[in-house]
Amino acid sequence: MRYFEDFNSGDVFELGEAVIAEAEILEFARKYDPQPFHVDKEAAARSMFKGLVASGWHTGSIFMGLLVRGLFRDSASVGSGGLDELRWLAPVRPGDVLRGRMTVLSRKESERHRERGTVVGLGELFNQRSERVFFIRWPALIGRRP
Amino acid sequence: MRYFEDFNSGDVFELGEAVIAEAEILEFARKYDPQPFHVDKEAAARSMFKGLVASGWHTGSIFMGLLVRGLFRDSASVGSGGLDELRWLAPVRPGDVLRGRMTVLSRKESERHRERGTVVGLGELFNQRSERVFFIRWPALIGRRP
Repeated sequence: MRYFEDFNSGDVFELGEAVIAEAEILEFARKYDPQPFHVDKEAAARSMFKGLVASGWHTGSIFMGLLVRGLFRDSASVGSGGLDELRWLAPVRPGDVLRGRMTVLSRKESERHRERGTVVGLGELFNQRSERVFFIRWPALIGRRP
Repeated sequence: MRYFEDFNSGDVFELGEAVIAEAEILEFARKYDPQPFHVDKEAAARSMFKGLVASGWHTGSIFMGLLVRGLFRDSASVGSGGLDELRWLAPVRPGDVLRGRMTVLSRKESERHRERGTVVGLGELFNQRSERVFFIRWPALIGRRP
Protein backbone atom coordinates (compact mmCIF):
# COMPACT_ATOMS: atom_id res chain seq x y z
CA MET A 1 0.00 0.00 0.00
CA ARG A 2 1.37 3.39 -1.02
CA TYR A 3 0.64 6.29 1.34
CA PHE A 4 1.08 10.07 1.16
CA GLU A 5 4.58 9.72 2.61
CA ASP A 6 5.58 7.43 -0.28
CA PHE A 7 4.97 10.07 -2.99
CA ASN A 8 7.93 12.34 -3.64
CA SER A 9 8.34 15.33 -5.91
CA GLY A 10 9.74 14.13 -9.24
CA ASP A 11 8.47 10.56 -8.93
CA VAL A 12 7.27 9.22 -12.29
CA PHE A 13 4.76 6.36 -12.55
CA GLU A 14 4.13 4.57 -15.83
CA LEU A 15 0.45 3.57 -15.86
CA GLY A 16 0.21 1.21 -18.81
CA GLU A 17 -1.79 1.40 -22.02
CA ALA A 18 -5.36 1.30 -23.30
CA VAL A 19 -6.62 0.90 -26.84
CA ILE A 20 -9.60 3.08 -27.72
CA ALA A 21 -11.91 1.34 -30.19
CA GLU A 22 -14.34 3.05 -32.55
CA ALA A 23 -17.33 1.28 -30.97
CA GLU A 24 -16.32 2.60 -27.55
CA ILE A 25 -15.89 6.16 -28.87
CA LEU A 26 -19.39 6.04 -30.37
CA GLU A 27 -21.00 4.45 -27.30
CA PHE A 28 -19.50 6.96 -24.87
CA ALA A 29 -20.33 9.94 -27.08
CA ARG A 30 -23.93 8.89 -27.78
CA LYS A 31 -24.50 8.88 -24.04
CA TYR A 32 -22.45 11.83 -22.85
CA ASP A 33 -21.25 14.02 -25.71
CA PRO A 34 -23.31 13.59 -28.89
CA GLN A 35 -21.60 16.31 -30.92
CA PRO A 36 -21.44 15.39 -34.64
CA PHE A 37 -17.64 14.92 -34.70
CA HIS A 38 -17.96 12.33 -31.88
CA VAL A 39 -20.96 10.31 -33.14
CA ASP A 40 -21.24 10.73 -36.92
CA LYS A 41 -18.35 9.65 -39.16
CA GLU A 42 -19.49 11.68 -42.16
CA ALA A 43 -20.04 14.86 -40.17
CA ALA A 44 -16.69 14.24 -38.45
CA ALA A 45 -14.94 14.05 -41.83
CA ARG A 46 -16.24 17.56 -42.59
CA SER A 47 -15.24 18.96 -39.16
CA MET A 48 -11.88 20.55 -38.27
CA PHE A 49 -10.86 17.09 -36.96
CA LYS A 50 -11.25 15.53 -40.44
CA GLY A 51 -12.53 12.29 -38.93
CA LEU A 52 -14.14 10.75 -35.86
CA VAL A 53 -12.52 11.77 -32.55
CA ALA A 54 -13.15 10.72 -28.95
CA SER A 55 -14.99 13.02 -26.57
CA GLY A 56 -12.53 14.82 -24.35
CA TRP A 57 -14.43 13.49 -21.34
CA HIS A 58 -13.87 10.00 -22.67
CA THR A 59 -10.14 10.67 -23.00
CA GLY A 60 -10.04 11.94 -19.42
CA SER A 61 -11.96 8.90 -18.21
CA ILE A 62 -9.48 6.58 -19.93
CA PHE A 63 -6.63 8.38 -18.17
CA MET A 64 -8.45 7.85 -14.87
CA GLY A 65 -8.86 4.13 -15.59
CA LEU A 66 -5.13 3.78 -16.24
CA LEU A 67 -4.32 5.79 -13.10
CA VAL A 68 -6.54 3.67 -10.87
CA ARG A 69 -5.48 0.30 -12.31
CA GLY A 70 -1.83 1.29 -12.66
CA LEU A 71 -1.27 3.14 -9.36
CA PHE A 72 -4.19 4.23 -7.19
CA ARG A 73 -5.54 0.71 -6.66
CA ASP A 74 -2.55 0.11 -4.39
CA SER A 75 -2.51 3.63 -2.95
CA ALA A 76 -4.46 5.30 -0.17
CA SER A 77 -6.27 7.61 -2.64
CA VAL A 78 -9.30 9.18 -0.98
CA GLY A 79 -10.53 11.47 -3.79
CA SER A 80 -9.87 14.91 -5.22
CA GLY A 81 -11.47 18.34 -5.14
CA GLY A 82 -10.90 19.04 -8.81
CA LEU A 83 -8.47 19.83 -11.60
CA ASP A 84 -6.31 22.95 -11.81
CA GLU A 85 -5.81 22.55 -15.55
CA LEU A 86 -6.79 20.11 -18.30
CA ARG A 87 -5.63 20.23 -21.93
CA TRP A 88 -6.70 18.21 -24.95
CA LEU A 89 -3.61 18.65 -27.10
CA ALA A 90 -4.29 16.41 -30.09
CA PRO A 91 -7.27 14.42 -31.38
CA VAL A 92 -7.78 10.86 -30.09
CA ARG A 93 -8.96 8.61 -32.92
CA PRO A 94 -10.35 5.07 -33.25
CA GLY A 95 -7.63 2.45 -32.71
CA ASP A 96 -5.25 4.80 -30.90
CA VAL A 97 -3.14 3.23 -28.16
CA LEU A 98 -3.00 5.58 -25.18
CA ARG A 99 -0.18 5.32 -22.66
CA GLY A 100 -0.57 6.95 -19.26
CA ARG A 101 1.97 8.55 -16.94
CA MET A 102 1.77 10.40 -13.63
CA THR A 103 4.51 12.69 -12.36
CA VAL A 104 4.49 14.02 -8.79
CA LEU A 105 4.91 17.82 -8.92
CA SER A 106 4.72 18.51 -5.19
CA ARG A 107 3.10 17.35 -1.98
CA LYS A 108 1.68 19.13 1.03
CA GLU A 109 0.41 17.94 4.39
CA SER A 110 -3.09 19.04 5.29
CA GLU A 111 -3.49 21.38 8.25
CA ARG A 112 -7.17 20.57 8.67
CA HIS A 113 -7.00 16.83 8.08
CA ARG A 114 -4.14 15.07 9.84
CA GLU A 115 -5.08 11.74 8.24
CA ARG A 116 -4.37 12.82 4.66
CA GLY A 117 -2.30 15.09 2.45
CA THR A 118 -2.29 16.55 -1.06
CA VAL A 119 -0.12 15.17 -3.85
CA VAL A 120 -0.11 17.54 -6.83
CA GLY A 121 0.18 15.42 -9.94
CA LEU A 122 0.76 15.88 -13.64
CA GLY A 123 -1.19 13.21 -15.52
CA GLU A 124 -0.43 12.65 -19.20
CA LEU A 125 -1.57 10.49 -22.11
CA PHE A 126 0.59 9.77 -25.16
CA ASN A 127 -0.52 7.98 -28.32
CA GLN A 128 1.27 5.26 -30.34
CA ARG A 129 3.33 7.98 -32.11
CA SER A 130 4.45 9.32 -28.70
CA GLU A 131 2.44 12.49 -29.27
CA ARG A 132 1.16 13.96 -26.02
CA VAL A 133 -2.61 14.10 -26.48
CA PHE A 134 -3.82 15.04 -22.98
CA PHE A 135 -2.67 16.32 -19.62
CA ILE A 136 -4.13 17.33 -16.26
CA ARG A 137 -2.60 19.06 -13.25
CA TRP A 138 -4.52 18.23 -10.12
CA PRO A 139 -4.36 17.88 -6.33
CA ALA A 140 -4.90 14.24 -5.33
CA LEU A 141 -5.86 13.55 -1.71
CA ILE A 142 -3.87 10.62 -0.33
CA GLY A 143 -4.19 9.06 3.11
CA ARG A 144 -1.18 9.23 5.44
CA ARG A 145 0.52 6.14 6.78
CA PRO A 146 -1.49 5.04 9.85
CA MET B 1 -28.31 27.91 -35.22
CA ARG B 2 -26.39 29.87 -32.61
CA TYR B 3 -23.01 31.27 -33.67
CA PHE B 4 -20.10 32.94 -31.88
CA GLU B 5 -21.73 36.34 -32.42
CA ASP B 6 -24.84 35.16 -30.56
CA PHE B 7 -23.02 34.51 -27.26
CA ASN B 8 -22.71 37.56 -25.03
CA SER B 9 -20.96 38.08 -21.71
CA GLY B 10 -23.48 37.45 -18.93
CA ASP B 11 -25.78 35.21 -20.96
CA VAL B 12 -27.16 32.36 -18.86
CA PHE B 13 -28.39 29.11 -20.42
CA GLU B 14 -30.43 26.60 -18.44
CA LEU B 15 -29.48 23.13 -19.72
CA GLY B 16 -32.09 20.87 -18.16
CA GLU B 17 -31.76 17.95 -15.76
CA ALA B 18 -30.44 14.41 -15.58
CA VAL B 19 -31.06 11.75 -12.93
CA ILE B 20 -27.99 9.70 -12.03
CA ALA B 21 -28.94 6.13 -11.14
CA GLU B 22 -26.91 3.74 -8.97
CA ALA B 23 -26.55 1.25 -11.83
CA GLU B 24 -25.08 3.97 -14.05
CA ILE B 25 -22.64 5.08 -11.32
CA LEU B 26 -21.42 1.49 -10.93
CA GLU B 27 -21.21 0.82 -14.67
CA PHE B 28 -19.22 3.97 -15.41
CA ALA B 29 -16.87 3.46 -12.47
CA ARG B 30 -16.19 -0.22 -13.17
CA LYS B 31 -14.99 0.83 -16.60
CA TYR B 32 -13.21 4.10 -15.94
CA ASP B 33 -12.68 4.74 -12.23
CA PRO B 34 -12.83 1.55 -10.13
CA GLN B 35 -11.88 3.14 -6.81
CA PRO B 36 -13.65 1.44 -3.87
CA PHE B 37 -15.90 4.41 -3.06
CA HIS B 38 -17.23 4.35 -6.67
CA VAL B 39 -17.78 0.60 -7.16
CA ASP B 40 -18.24 -1.02 -3.73
CA LYS B 41 -21.10 0.10 -1.49
CA GLU B 42 -19.61 -1.35 1.70
CA ALA B 43 -16.16 0.17 1.11
CA ALA B 44 -17.87 3.45 0.17
CA ALA B 45 -19.73 3.47 3.51
CA ARG B 46 -16.35 3.34 5.28
CA SER B 47 -14.81 6.09 3.09
CA MET B 48 -14.87 9.84 3.78
CA PHE B 49 -17.94 9.97 1.48
CA LYS B 50 -19.94 7.66 3.82
CA GLY B 51 -21.67 6.05 0.84
CA LEU B 52 -21.40 5.38 -2.88
CA VAL B 53 -20.49 8.45 -4.97
CA ALA B 54 -20.17 9.01 -8.72
CA SER B 55 -16.75 9.27 -10.34
CA GLY B 56 -15.88 12.90 -10.94
CA TRP B 57 -15.34 12.05 -14.60
CA HIS B 58 -18.87 10.70 -14.71
CA THR B 59 -20.19 13.94 -13.21
CA GLY B 60 -18.28 15.93 -15.82
CA SER B 61 -19.60 13.71 -18.60
CA ILE B 62 -23.16 14.24 -17.40
CA PHE B 63 -22.60 18.00 -17.52
CA MET B 64 -21.34 17.62 -21.08
CA GLY B 65 -24.43 15.64 -22.06
CA LEU B 66 -26.70 18.37 -20.70
CA LEU B 67 -24.61 21.05 -22.44
CA VAL B 68 -24.77 19.32 -25.82
CA ARG B 69 -28.47 18.41 -25.65
CA GLY B 70 -29.48 21.69 -24.03
CA LEU B 71 -27.39 24.16 -26.04
CA PHE B 72 -24.52 22.99 -28.25
CA ARG B 73 -26.69 20.79 -30.45
CA ASP B 74 -28.07 24.01 -31.95
CA SER B 75 -24.78 25.92 -31.78
CA ALA B 76 -21.74 26.03 -34.03
CA SER B 77 -19.54 24.35 -31.38
CA VAL B 78 -16.35 23.04 -32.95
CA GLY B 79 -14.54 21.69 -29.86
CA SER B 80 -12.32 22.93 -27.06
CA GLY B 81 -8.66 22.85 -26.12
CA GLY B 82 -9.26 22.10 -22.47
CA LEU B 83 -10.49 23.31 -19.10
CA ASP B 84 -8.97 26.16 -17.09
CA GLU B 85 -10.47 24.90 -13.84
CA LEU B 86 -12.74 22.09 -12.67
CA ARG B 87 -14.10 21.62 -9.14
CA TRP B 88 -16.02 18.76 -7.59
CA LEU B 89 -17.71 20.64 -4.74
CA ALA B 90 -20.00 18.02 -3.20
CA PRO B 91 -20.52 14.29 -3.62
CA VAL B 92 -22.93 13.08 -6.32
CA ARG B 93 -24.96 10.13 -5.04
CA PRO B 94 -27.35 7.55 -6.54
CA GLY B 95 -30.71 9.10 -7.39
CA ASP B 96 -29.44 12.68 -7.44
CA VAL B 97 -31.09 14.99 -9.96
CA LEU B 98 -28.46 17.17 -11.60
CA ARG B 99 -29.40 20.48 -13.21
CA GLY B 100 -27.00 22.13 -15.63
CA ARG B 101 -26.31 25.78 -16.38
CA MET B 102 -23.84 27.63 -18.57
CA THR B 103 -22.94 31.28 -18.09
CA VAL B 104 -20.91 33.20 -20.68
CA LEU B 105 -17.97 34.88 -18.92
CA SER B 106 -16.36 36.48 -21.95
CA ARG B 107 -15.75 36.01 -25.66
CA LYS B 108 -12.82 36.68 -27.92
CA GLU B 109 -12.36 36.57 -31.68
CA SER B 110 -9.52 34.39 -32.90
CA GLU B 111 -6.62 36.09 -34.64
CA ARG B 112 -5.43 32.88 -36.28
CA HIS B 113 -8.79 31.44 -37.24
CA ARG B 114 -11.22 33.91 -38.80
CA GLU B 115 -13.94 31.26 -38.98
CA ARG B 116 -14.28 30.80 -35.22
CA GLY B 117 -13.92 32.46 -31.83
CA THR B 118 -13.57 31.57 -28.15
CA VAL B 119 -16.48 31.76 -25.71
CA VAL B 120 -15.24 31.41 -22.13
CA GLY B 121 -17.95 29.62 -20.18
CA LEU B 122 -18.76 28.77 -16.61
CA GLY B 123 -20.51 25.39 -16.53
CA GLU B 124 -22.28 24.33 -13.33
CA LEU B 125 -24.27 21.42 -11.95
CA PHE B 126 -26.69 21.71 -9.02
CA ASN B 127 -28.45 18.86 -7.24
CA GLN B 128 -32.09 18.55 -6.11
CA ARG B 129 -31.25 20.53 -2.94
CA SER B 130 -29.82 23.34 -5.12
CA GLU B 131 -26.33 22.58 -3.83
CA ARG B 132 -23.68 23.35 -6.42
CA VAL B 133 -21.83 20.07 -6.89
CA PHE B 134 -19.58 20.83 -9.89
CA PHE B 135 -18.23 23.62 -12.04
CA ILE B 136 -15.84 24.14 -14.93
CA ARG B 137 -14.37 27.27 -16.50
CA TRP B 138 -13.37 26.64 -20.07
CA PRO B 139 -12.78 28.18 -23.50
CA ALA B 140 -15.31 26.81 -25.99
CA LEU B 141 -14.51 27.23 -29.68
CA ILE B 142 -17.61 28.39 -31.59
CA GLY B 143 -17.90 28.96 -35.31
CA ARG B 144 -18.63 32.49 -36.54
CA ARG B 145 -21.72 33.34 -38.54
CA PRO B 146 -20.90 32.50 -42.17
